[in-house]
Amino acid sequence: MSCDAFETLKKRYLTLRDNGLANTFKIQDAIISSIRVFLKSEGFTEILAPIIGPVTDPGIRGAKQVTIDYYGVPFKVMSSMILYKQMIIASLPKVFALSPNIRLEPLETVKTRRHLTEFRQIDLEVAYATCEEVMELGENMLCHVIREVKRKCCEELGERGKSLKVPRKPFKKYTYNEAVEILKNMGMHVEYGEEIPWEAEEALSKAHSEPFWITNYPITARGFYYMENERKPEVLEDFDLIYPEGFGEAVSGGKREHRYERLVERMWRSGENPSDYGWYLDMLKAGIPPSAGFGIGVERLTRFICGLENIWDAVPFPKVAGVPSP
Amino acid sequence: MSCDAFETLKKRYLTLRDNGLANTFKIQDAIISSIRVFLKSEGFTEILAPIIGPVTDPGIRGAKQVTIDYYGVPFKVMSSMILYKQMIIASLPKVFALSPNIRLEPLETVKTRRHLTEFRQIDLEVAYATCEEVMELGENMLCHVIREVKRKCCEELGERGKSLKVPRKPFKKYTYNEAVEILKNMGMHVEYGEEIPWEAEEALSKAHSEPFWITNYPITARGFYYMENERKPEVLEDFDLIYPEGFGEAVSGGKREHRYERLVERMWRSGENPSDYGWYLDMLKAGIPPSAGFGIGVERLTRFICGLENIWDAVPFPKVAGVPSP
Repeated sequence: MSCDAFETLKKRYLTLRDNGLANTFKIQDAIISSIRVFLKSEGFTEILAPIIGPVTDPGIRGAKQVTIDYYGVPFKVMSSMILYKQMIIASLPKVFALSPNIRLEPLETVKTRRHLTEFRQIDLEVAYATCEEVMELGENMLCHVIREVKRKCCEELGERGKSLKVPRKPFKKYTYNEAVEILKNMGMHVEYGEEIPWEAEEALSKAHSEPFWITNYPITARGFYYMENERKPEVLEDFDLIYPEGFGEAVSGGKREHRYERLVERMWRSGENPSDYGWYLDMLKAGIPPSAGFGIGVERLTRFICGLENIWDAVPFPKVAGVPSP
Repeated sequence: MSCDAFETLKKRYLTLRDNGLANTFKIQDAIISSIRVFLKSEGFTEILAPIIGPVTDPGIRGAKQVTIDYYGVPFKVMSSMILYKQMIIASLPKVFALSPNIRLEPLETVKTRRHLTEFRQIDLEVAYATCEEVMELGENMLCHVIREVKRKCCEELGERGKSLKVPRKPFKKYTYNEAVEILKNMGMHVEYGEEIPWEAEEALSKAHSEPFWITNYPITARGFYYMENERKPEVLEDFDLIYPEGFGEAVSGGKREHRYERLVERMWRSGENPSDYGWYLDMLKAGIPPSAGFGIGVERLTRFICGLENIWDAVPFPKVAGVPSP
């Protein structure tokens, strides 16, 4: 990120007046509205997401969580509401929320042009669902949104309207192993068991003109809350959706581990101390329904749909690593 | 708050399964949806609210803000997005957001049954608007929401559906002086220049069967960002909307002071140091449009519409002062 871009963010109150940004925010409004219409037609209830709480999702790829003092007890600002979604589906079996998330990303993420430290997800969860069911829902949702935005925001999209296509269903599916193999053939080495690094993910994204899935990550690459595949030990029931054209990760989700004993084992394995997860483990001990779900980043979806180079143009008040902007 | 209620909140994962709560959250979804439909029909754009930032609204009646370390710079978790609304209306003249807010309230607020430490507002702002214009908008919005919820959520509202009436417009308007006079006649003393205490506001609310406005608070009772009345010095161009039946405050808003010199004076007067407000003052120096707007608390609106005794039943994951619940 250049010094100029850095200074521009700190003077957001001037650059916000640029008409291109106002168009982006109108498109963003249409994106979120059309997601809501779609999910409600599928029987979902929109709920209020948590902002802070005693525990939050730890699986955030090297970013730091924010801890605050809540009347003498350490609380986190939510980095993801996964654990809370597992709570509410016992009451409402299909829920979604526009959830606020804070992740203090490493400084080098500025270079990816797709990391914010403050962002929102449309977070959804379905009781008793399989991975396949929520993946199909995700495909239908993305196609619906692109179709609606092309229809409603023709003027605001401008030139991007021509290159933005409604994807063909079903989307292509690679397992993690297949993705690593393709990357190897492209000359990029990913160590088996690790997350696919951002540069590799971007390269894979650039090699595609339609969104695609990567499924079944190894157990060592992801958080404790994804369920292990019964037939393929050490492999998870999870998935990412990747945008084409270099826009990278869109969605992360999977089936949740809801069995108390298994989850405690998984926590120990992933270096988490179960005693840090008070209410969450009490809840699992009391028993919750199995579920699957995902989160789709609102700013990244806006970046993709609008064809923006920088994620910080996809939100009115952007926060990027290391830049104390408004 | 009894110890039982305290323990119940900590075991939210069990009490959430109560069917009454699921009904409340379905009604809450209908409330927020109908506000969105109404505001869009009035030409508003929904934007993404900030979660953290270098400064936030300081006018929060004795509650504490949360400060975090943002790459070596002190940042606040938003207690209100007023200052940010003033930024965006230069680009989009009618905006609203579902904004996340954290205010660490004093422990005694638990007794009011209407204070949460984590809550959301529908926050809206209109460039070049007067107080009267946004108050009329507020009346139309509240009537629209109640009408829609009565229509759509007949079953979920149950008995409450009968007592919940669409208010008559225009709502009654008291100035602060008139409200203080009425309270005096009710045997409750409010020192001129101070905020109306919660108990007094609740008593006034109980004495009404329709929502009503209190306008023109004294300059000493509110934050620096409300404009002083040109014709009545020491009195603000601001307003609160109060629900009837003891439900208390619904809305807080007003016309904004947008003139740099006047605002700096007001900051000094209210005990704020202008040097703590970097970007905000730079923005006012660069010039912004005048505007008016308000915030309506989503959980309090839900409490009123559902007729709930306790605010913590109006949100899936409630946080009240001093209780480290999920």
